[in-house]
Amino acid sequence: MPRLALLQSRSFPSKSEALAHHEPLIRQAAAAGANIVVTQELFLTPYFCGVQDPAAFDLADTLPGPITERLGALAGELGIVLIASLFERRGPGLYHNTAATFDADGSWLGLYRKAHIPQDPGFEEKFFFAPGDSGWPVWTTRFGNIGVLICWDQWYPEAARLMALGGAQLLVYPTAIGWLATEKAALGELQHGAWETVQRGHAVANGCYLAAVNRCGHCGDTEFWGRSFVAGPYGQLLAKASTSDEQILYQDLDYGSLEEVRRLWPFFRDRRIDAYGELTQRWRS
Amino acid sequence: MPRLALLQSRSFPSKSEALAHHEPLIRQAAAAGANIVVTQELFLTPYFCGVQDPAAFDLADTLPGPITERLGALAGELGIVLIASLFERRGPGLYHNTAATFDADGSWLGLYRKAHIPQDPGFEEKFFFAPGDSGWPVWTTRFGNIGVLICWDQWYPEAARLMALGGAQLLVYPTAIGWLATEKAALGELQHGAWETVQRGHAVANGCYLAAVNRCGHCGDTEFWGRSFVAGPYGQLLAKASTSDEQILYQDLDYGSLEEVRRLWPFFRDRRIDAYGELTQRWRS
Repeated sequence: MPRLALLQSRSFPSKSEALAHHEPLIRQAAAAGANIVVTQELFLTPYFCGVQDPAAFDLADTLPGPITERLGALAGELGIVLIASLFERRGPGLYHNTAATFDADGSWLGLYRKAHIPQDPGFEEKFFFAPGDSGWPVWTTRFGNIGVLICWDQWYPEAARLMALGGAQLLVYPTAIGWLATEKAALGELQHGAWETVQRGHAVANGCYLAAVNRCGHCGDTEFWGRSFVAGPYGQLLAKASTSDEQILYQDLDYGSLEEVRRLWPFFRDRRIDAYGELTQRWRS
Repeated sequence: MPRLALLQSRSFPSKSEALAHHEPLIRQAAAAGANIVVTQELFLTPYFCGVQDPAAFDLADTLPGPITERLGALAGELGIVLIASLFERRGPGLYHNTAATFDADGSWLGLYRKAHIPQDPGFEEKFFFAPGDSGWPVWTTRFGNIGVLICWDQWYPEAARLMALGGAQLLVYPTAIGWLATEKAALGELQHGAWETVQRGHAVANGCYLAAVNRCGHCGDTEFWGRSFVAGPYGQLLAKASTSDEQILYQDLDYGSLEEVRRLWPFFRDRRIDAYGELTQRWRS
């Protein structure tokens, strides 16, 4: 069974420090038998979207580039699938929140550019990221068919479904979600519960594994939730990380069991594709 | 705030007995302040879909007909919105699993015909019910905008989303789901957990209330789960009924709070309607 490892980590002041911290973690995970290793969202940088500062664009990388060469070489050396969430400079004035996926031979499978972009106080992402136009690629890797989505995408059943229709056995969400100090007391637990529940629901509806890799610690006014987790095809929590500490979270994945689940509950058989056309409308009234 | 009442009930040998049992329950709920009353799935009959017996078609009602007249009169008399799940004979050899909704003045708002039809041992519904072609109507009632879906629909994020896009503040699912004796020990709690989780996820993704009204007790080889519930827009469980006993489950609904939730988490703002076209495909590979 493939072993998944999620790198729940804090923020670092510089990209070089973040990389110097993560490389040993990736090696440690591989040494512990991990076959698929996933970073948190924008793992090389602090969560810079708290304020709309144009200087933060300097943090972006051109892809492919030195960072993908280095990560691909690491994946190939260790024989792991590596999924890294990066800040991409695609063109002058055109930036994306992007995940790069490398197969276990080190080859670069491609990019997924975050499709759903949030914009609210403390999460000013529409200032930084153009909405992705990479579609819904499912990566055929040595260790399974993987659909990579990113953070705000996790609230959208459409995104999970499209990946599952593309054959995904595992959905992975690099994430940076947390509380604003002003909201935590009143809404904190409700918000965290909603976040976990909606993703567990995607695992049920699509009969697949689902993993969310969140940041921990503070960044500006935001306190990240940690609590990275892996859910199974019944939405059951299989593994869950600490709230505040760095942690490598491991979970073995039994893809064969997905076939059993989908035979008992064949949701894909009965989808009413003749009646879903209005899903592409903004509103129905 | 409108008060919702879910009539979790057992099965009765005849339609007349079921109606004689439910009328006092509906009056009791109204006397307790309920404004919206919902029956379980196919509340007039035993769960006859356990075996493919053509004689069971005799249980169906033509709609509109005496049953809708009687239920509409009751709704009007009590001033309640009444949602009743019925077995409909639409034409010769054409039957549906249908929910009728009555406004608080007794007027019949219309039918929803179950769109997703299951077929597995013990739940032989494709034998009995043609897939619904009523679309995704949202009923504008005196006590809110209500989207009625039925049982197997509950596993489909598409159905919940389409109702929410139509303005639903409350999703209601009359349901008859249970365990086969052969599966209960190994999968029982996982299956129940999945059922509750996926629906709580719909409430989160759509920022709405969601209520599932299940049967209790045994019918043939099936042990129904009971555990009807109401979830709020964070997916939180607000009310939950017994596993094995009949119960009227009440919950007050604060529709105003949905506006607050959707302002903090404006999921509808960011849907990628330009990129969802393949949701109408059966499979993407």
